Amino acid sequence: MQPLSTQPYKGTRDFYPADMRFREAMFAVMHKTVRRYGFDPIDAPIIEPIDIYLAKTSEEIVSQQIYSFVDRGERKVALRPEMTPTVSRMVAARFHETPKPIRWYSIPNVWRYEQPGKGRLREHWQLNCDIFGAATESLADLEILNLAVDLLRAYGATDTHFKVYISHRSILNAVFKNELRLAEEKWPAVARILDKRAKLKREAYNELLKAEGVSETQAQELEEFLNGKEDYLKKKPHLEGSAYILDMLQNLSSLGLLPFVEYDPSVVRGFDYYTGLVFEVFDTHPENRRSLFGGGRYDNLVGAFAKETLNAVGFGMGDVTLEDFLRTHKLLDDIPRRVDLFIALLDTGLGTEALKLAQTLRTQGLAVEVSLGAGKLGKQFQEAEKKGITRVLILGEDEVKSGIYPVKTLATGEQVKLRAAEILPIG
Amino acid sequence: MQPLSTQPYKGTRDFYPADMRFREAMFAVMHKTVRRYGFDPIDAPIIEPIDIYLAKTSEEIVSQQIYSFVDRGERKVALRPEMTPTVSRMVAARFHETPKPIRWYSIPNVWRYEQPGKGRLREHWQLNCDIFGAATESLADLEILNLAVDLLRAYGATDTHFKVYISHRSILNAVFKNELRLAEEKWPAVARILDKRAKLKREAYNELLKAEGVSETQAQELEEFLNGKEDYLKKKPHLEGSAYILDMLQNLSSLGLLPFVEYDPSVVRGFDYYTGLVFEVFDTHPENRRSLFGGGRYDNLVGAFAKETLNAVGFGMGDVTLEDFLRTHKLLDDIPRRVDLFIALLDTGLGTEALKLAQTLRTQGLAVEVSLGAGKLGKQFQEAEKKGITRVLILGEDEVKSGIYPVKTLATGEQVKLRAAEILPIG
Repeated sequence: MQPLSTQPYKGTRDFYPADMRFREAMFAVMHKTVRRYGFDPIDAPIIEPIDIYLAKTSEEIVSQQIYSFVDRGERKVALRPEMTPTVSRMVAARFHETPKPIRWYSIPNVWRYEQPGKGRLREHWQLNCDIFGAATESLADLEILNLAVDLLRAYGATDTHFKVYISHRSILNAVFKNELRLAEEKWPAVARILDKRAKLKREAYNELLKAEGVSETQAQELEEFLNGKEDYLKKKPHLEGSAYILDMLQNLSSLGLLPFVEYDPSVVRGFDYYTGLVFEVFDTHPENRRSLFGGGRYDNLVGAFAKETLNAVGFGMGDVTLEDFLRTHKLLDDIPRRVDLFIALLDTGLGTEALKLAQTLRTQGLAVEVSLGAGKLGKQFQEAEKKGITRVLILGEDEVKSGIYPVKTLATGEQVKLRAAEILPIG
Repeated sequence: MQPLSTQPYKGTRDFYPADMRFREAMFAVMHKTVRRYGFDPIDAPIIEPIDIYLAKTSEEIVSQQIYSFVDRGERKVALRPEMTPTVSRMVAARFHETPKPIRWYSIPNVWRYEQPGKGRLREHWQLNCDIFGAATESLADLEILNLAVDLLRAYGATDTHFKVYISHRSILNAVFKNELRLAEEKWPAVARILDKRAKLKREAYNELLKAEGVSETQAQELEEFLNGKEDYLKKKPHLEGSAYILDMLQNLSSLGLLPFVEYDPSVVRGFDYYTGLVFEVFDTHPENRRSLFGGGRYDNLVGAFAKETLNAVGFGMGDVTLEDFLRTHKLLDDIPRRVDLFIALLDTGLGTEALKLAQTLRTQGLAVEVSLGAGKLGKQFQEAEKKGITRVLILGEDEVKSGIYPVKTLATGEQVKLRAAEILPIG
């Protein structure tokens, strides 16, 4: 029979021990940081009814990227492509009994059928942090931005490594409506062109605008809006979202966060459910200048599951782009394996005795690996070394009788005789 | 529009913060215990090609319970119903470069389309521990049994709470072949009857045997085998697996594990890939007398993915039955929420100042929740109380100026004035 493939499913990763140590170190920083903000962990099944994505998730994801199928009970289901609808569903299920504001986080794996490439896989893990039902919404927005910055700072990143670009969903529409007087049916198409602006040559960008019937005067106004940034907003205080952004920048300044955060009117974000603040965090490394993660305010999503809605703001930070970021800037590197002791056997028949000794040492807090009969001592030392274990205890008949064991440090060859109680975890 | 359902997909669970605290506490014991045995963590995508289950997983799972579908690239895939084929695939992928023996563990979620009931859900998490490529296989079996016992002991369980029943896959077949001289095509059917024996009335059991053409003499021999236990094996040393079990019991005795482990010839286990040791752990509680988890030796599974095979032994311990066990015996209970401090605002306008103070306290290691503008002080105290926070700092204009803050313990009403640096995490 032909052997089965050893490869993981296309566009996904197997996590071997070294990968897991890195992932765990990366996730540990997330857990620690968000818990200091009072966020509580949640989780949910990876399968959801597909309906919950039809309403508010981006059209591209649902029609082209979602993993969906019909189960044995004829239910149309999907592997979650993102966590926000699930979290909103869970909030709606315990709408009244959960004290507000609700601060929840999770690190789910999410699935999208994408062409795999750098920073883009079919399965990735994603830290989701959300605040629901804040009495003062802008304060929740500020806390979310503070948390987003603190997360990257917790890995040792500084304002030279990343930048958070913020905007407000209403501003662009207000500019379309009040300043450009653009027909409403054209807004989505023009917004998509703006979204691609940074990647387009100037001429191509102008051509696309023209094709949508944007006049030169209108294009000129768009330029002022995009390049003028805060100054444009100060001149146009009547625009919806304008005062919001100016206030937010003021508050970010009070919190000492302005070195990390900037207003960028071109930030839009793909999800249809955003209603206010939107933001996107970029790597500033010249060779890695791309979006790390983003989020925003989505005040209507809980309302899709309940009679009332609840204001909400949050973000999702993917592990693939984060790992690239951390490795590129040398903020987190491979984590060495850590086992305190290897027990080598002078005689294969001493295996049970070795397991017995290991029991004792484990109750003392040591991580101990026992040779499962590997043959000659030299070969067992090699096994320990290959496994990244630095100390070996050699067990023979005499040692079993005396309870005094030679413990060898492999790097130096130094050997000491110790009783079990004297063997401590490595430093 | 009709609101969408807030329920999780049938037969699955949402994990709210209290559920997650319990799960994390349960998993933390697993991580700690298995790492003391030198087991390394791994993980893999939840989607696998369906082929890897067709060969060796039980027929019932593949034909009736597997979640399978065709992806957008026409690949036949499945959500993993168990982890063993995946782990074997990963071992095969790095067969030569990984030092042996390989000790790997994971806590994946697995999916089976089952009728949900007590202890049975469509999604559950499962601790998998496996040893591959031990030079002395029986020593690996002994270590796996030791670990299985230690895991439950790590939760505080004793020999009054659970029992591990062991057997060897070959024994039953050897009895069929050498003692009963039963035609080989009848073995699977008779084995299935034995598997149900404990649940059947005596007459029904006898009828089923008779229907398969088992004579009264043969049925008599089966009784001696099942009831005689070790004594039967001692009388029949020529049976394959007989010496193995007698040796294993000896070694378990040396390790002090006999109070936890017993030989039970009726243990079979459902998976087709088992080749030697099989075991099943039972709750001994009279109202909860059922299988908690099990495992065994499967020496041919890696060979399905590689030119050579590698001996292997392991087990999978599900979270649903384990949680039942821990709660029934009161070994693990709900874990209280733990946030060190709540910052209440005398004035909603002080939100940014509160976030700034929280930043400082967080760098001191405190978990701090900030009121996001909840109105009157009494209402904010209520919010803190509902959230399980025991201390509240009250922030007003004067406090912002002086840097000295009243900190109130809600249970006692006691209030002290502290500088930020004097506020410590709760005990």
